[in-house]
Amino acid sequence: MSLVVQKFGGTSVADIGRIKHVADLVARSRRAGDTVLVVLSAMSGETDRLVKLAHEVAECPDEREMDMLLSTGERVTIALLAMALRSLGFDARSYTGRQVGIITDSMHTKARIERIAAERIQAALDKGIIPVVAGFQGINEQNDVTTLGRGGSDLTAVALAAALKADRCIIYTDVDGVYTADPNVVPAARRQDKVSYEEMLELASLGAKVLQSRSVEFAAKYGVPVVVKSTFVEGRGTLVTKEDRDMEQVVVSGVTGDRNQAKVTFIGVPDKPGIAARIFGAIGAANILVDMIIQNVSQGDLTDLSFTIPRADLPKAVDLAKRIAKDIGAKSVEVKDQIAKVSLVGVGMRSHSGVAGRMFETLAREGINIMMISTSEIKISCVIEEKSMEQAIRSLHQAFGLEKG
Amino acid sequence: MSLVVQKFGGTSVADIGRIKHVADLVARSRRAGDTVLVVLSAMSGETDRLVKLAHEVAECPDEREMDMLLSTGERVTIALLAMALRSLGFDARSYTGRQVGIITDSMHTKARIERIAAERIQAALDKGIIPVVAGFQGINEQNDVTTLGRGGSDLTAVALAAALKADRCIIYTDVDGVYTADPNVVPAARRQDKVSYEEMLELASLGAKVLQSRSVEFAAKYGVPVVVKSTFVEGRGTLVTKEDRDMEQVVVSGVTGDRNQAKVTFIGVPDKPGIAARIFGAIGAANILVDMIIQNVSQGDLTDLSFTIPRADLPKAVDLAKRIAKDIGAKSVEVKDQIAKVSLVGVGMRSHSGVAGRMFETLAREGINIMMISTSEIKISCVIEEKSMEQAIRSLHQAFGLEKG
Repeated sequence: MSLVVQKFGGTSVADIGRIKHVADLVARSRRAGDTVLVVLSAMSGETDRLVKLAHEVAECPDEREMDMLLSTGERVTIALLAMALRSLGFDARSYTGRQVGIITDSMHTKARIERIAAERIQAALDKGIIPVVAGFQGINEQNDVTTLGRGGSDLTAVALAAALKADRCIIYTDVDGVYTADPNVVPAARRQDKVSYEEMLELASLGAKVLQSRSVEFAAKYGVPVVVKSTFVEGRGTLVTKEDRDMEQVVVSGVTGDRNQAKVTFIGVPDKPGIAARIFGAIGAANILVDMIIQNVSQGDLTDLSFTIPRADLPKAVDLAKRIAKDIGAKSVEVKDQIAKVSLVGVGMRSHSGVAGRMFETLAREGINIMMISTSEIKISCVIEEKSMEQAIRSLHQAFGLEKG
Repeated sequence: MSLVVQKFGGTSVADIGRIKHVADLVARSRRAGDTVLVVLSAMSGETDRLVKLAHEVAECPDEREMDMLLSTGERVTIALLAMALRSLGFDARSYTGRQVGIITDSMHTKARIERIAAERIQAALDKGIIPVVAGFQGINEQNDVTTLGRGGSDLTAVALAAALKADRCIIYTDVDGVYTADPNVVPAARRQDKVSYEEMLELASLGAKVLQSRSVEFAAKYGVPVVVKSTFVEGRGTLVTKEDRDMEQVVVSGVTGDRNQAKVTFIGVPDKPGIAARIFGAIGAANILVDMIIQNVSQGDLTDLSFTIPRADLPKAVDLAKRIAKDIGAKSVEVKDQIAKVSLVGVGMRSHSGVAGRMFETLAREGINIMMISTSEIKISCVIEEKSMEQAIRSLHQAFGLEKG
C-alpha cells in the first residue's frame, strides 16, 4: 500500500462538475489500494476575482490582508471536495494550511515554508481519513495566514509528500506531461516518460509552465518522485525523478523558447578593473535579474558589454543604464527587445560532446543569427531574433531526433 | 475614551462602495476619540451562494465541511475592510474567529460560544490597532472551524463587547432602530430611544427581525448596552439596556404581529390525569415547538384541548395528532392555519394594571374575535384571524397612545 499525494489545479476544480470528476479520480486511487492525500487550488478565476476586489477597495492593498483574502479560495474547494467524497462514502476531511501544520516565514504573499508539523495529518491518515488540504497557504509564528506565491499549491503538495515520505506526488493539470518541446510550436513533440529534477528545473526556469522551479527544487532536495499528468485525459504522464542511466543515453531531452527577454549593451566602456562590478551592483540593487552577460574582446582600452534581462524590467533598466553610462564614462547605451532565447536541455550533455556544435550548425543552416550564447552542464542557450524563435525550435527538435516514434 | 464594538451586517458590506462607506463610519468614530473594534458579516448573498454550491456537490453536505465552506465569506469582507481602513491611514487588522479566540463547542453549523480567549485582541487594542473581526465563526477544542448559526455575527459582536467590557455594542443594520410597531403596517409607528433587554427579547421572539434572541440574552446576561442603528441613515437608533425608572412609566412599548402560527384542537378528549402529558410528550419528541396551550372547561368527562405551533410544522403535526387522537380516545382533530398572534410588550405592565382589559376592549370594538390568550409578566398575546392582524395592530397602537409626537 503506497501513500500518494494528488494535487489538482484551478482548472481541475473550476466548477461542481469538475469537482465531482476529481472526487472520482481520488476514489479510484483509493479503491486501487492507495492511501491518498489531496491538495487543491482555488477554482480558476477566483483568485483573480479577489485580487480585483482588493484593488477596488485600496490602491495598494496591504499584504497581510491580501493573504487573509486570497486564502479563502482554497477553503471553498477543499470543503466542497470533502463533501463530494463523503457523499461517495469515503471518510474525507478538509484541512487548512494551518491545520496541516505548514509553518512559514512572515513574507506575506510570497512566504517560504520553514517546517511542517505533520502530526495531525499523519494521525488522520493513520485513521483511514482522506485529507483534503488547502494548497498555497500556511501560517506564520504569529498565527497569521500567509500565502506561498505563484505555484504555491504545487509546493504544498511536494512539501507534504516530503514530510510524510509519500511514495509519489502526482500533479494533475491540463497538460498530460512534459514534452520535448511546446506542442503548439512543434506538432511532432513527444511526451517524455521520465525527466530528471535538473532537467525539469532548467525547463521550468526556461519558460515551460508545467511546474514552478521552487516545487522542483523542493522535490529534488527531498527526493520526492513527482508525476505530471492530465486531470482530463487518461495517460501515464511524466515522472520527474533522480537522474539515472537511461536518461544519460538521451543527449537532449527538450527544446524550449522564451520570449521574455531584452538586451542592453554598453558601448565604449573603459576596459579596467571594477567597471563590471559597478554596472551589475547598481542593476542588482534595483532588483533586476540579469540572465546572460557577454563582454567583447577589448579594442584598445575600450570594450562593449551586453546583458539580458526580463522584458518587463526594460523601462526601469534603460533609465538606470543611462545614469550608469554617464557615471563610468561609457559612450552610449543600446537596447533591443525583439529577442528570444532558445535552449537545449539534457543530462546526457554531461557525457556527450558535440551538442553545441550541432546546435550552431543547425541555426546557421536556417540562416538564424546567434547574438549571445550561454552554457551550463546540462543546457545550451542562444539569444536570437524573436521572429525566428519558432523556426529555431522546430529545426533543433528535428536535428536532435526528438520527434515521435 | 470609550471602547465601542461596531457590527455591520451583510447588506452593509454588500459591495465595494458600501465597504468604503463602512470604513468612513469607523473612521468617524475613531476620529471622535473612541477605541473601535469592528465585527462583520459576509457580503449579502454570499452565504446563499456557498450553500447552493454545497447542495450541488452533495445531497446532504457534511456539517463540519459546511462550516469550513461558510466561514470563508466573513474572511473576504474583513480583509477588504482592513485594506480600506489602512488606505485611509488607520492601523487596521483583520482577525478570524480563531484569531480573536472565540472557542465554541463542536455543534457544527450552530455552535455555542464556550469562552473567549481575548488576549490577542486586547493586545491589538492596546497597541492602537482597529481589529476587524469575522463574525459568525469560532473554533472548537479540536482546532476545527465552527459557525454560530443564524444571527451569529450579532452574537460575536455582543460576546466580544462582553469579554472586552466595551462601553457599548452598536449593531448597524438596514433599519434605524426598534419601533413601537412594524412601520409597514402602522405608518405612525415611532422609533424608541430605549427598550429593556426583556422587552427586546419578547420583541425578538415575537417576530421583530432586528436582533436575534440569543444575542439579546447574551447582552442581558453580561449587561452589554446594545444600540441598533442604520448604516445608511444618520440617527440615534435604539438603546437596548437594563430596565430603568423611565421605562416603567411606559406601559406598552410595542405591538407586534406574527403570522407564523397554526392551531390544532383535540375535540372530546377524556378529562383524566396523564392525557396532556401523552399529547405533548409525543409532540415534543417530534421536535415541534408548542407555543400556547388552552384546555376548555370540562363538560361531563370530556374536554377540548387546543395548542399553537409554527405553521411550517403543521403537516407533520396533523399526522401525529391523528395518531395521538386514536391512542387517547379523542373524538376528532381540528386544524386552523389562517391565524395570527398579536402581542403587547412592555415592562410597565409589571406596575400598571388594566392593560389586558383595554386590549380585549379595543379588539372587541373592532369586531375582532379572540381565539386564545396568553400572558407573561411583560407581555399579552391574543390569537386572532389572520385577516384581522393588521387592523388589530393599528387599533392597539392607537389605543395605547404609541403614535409619533
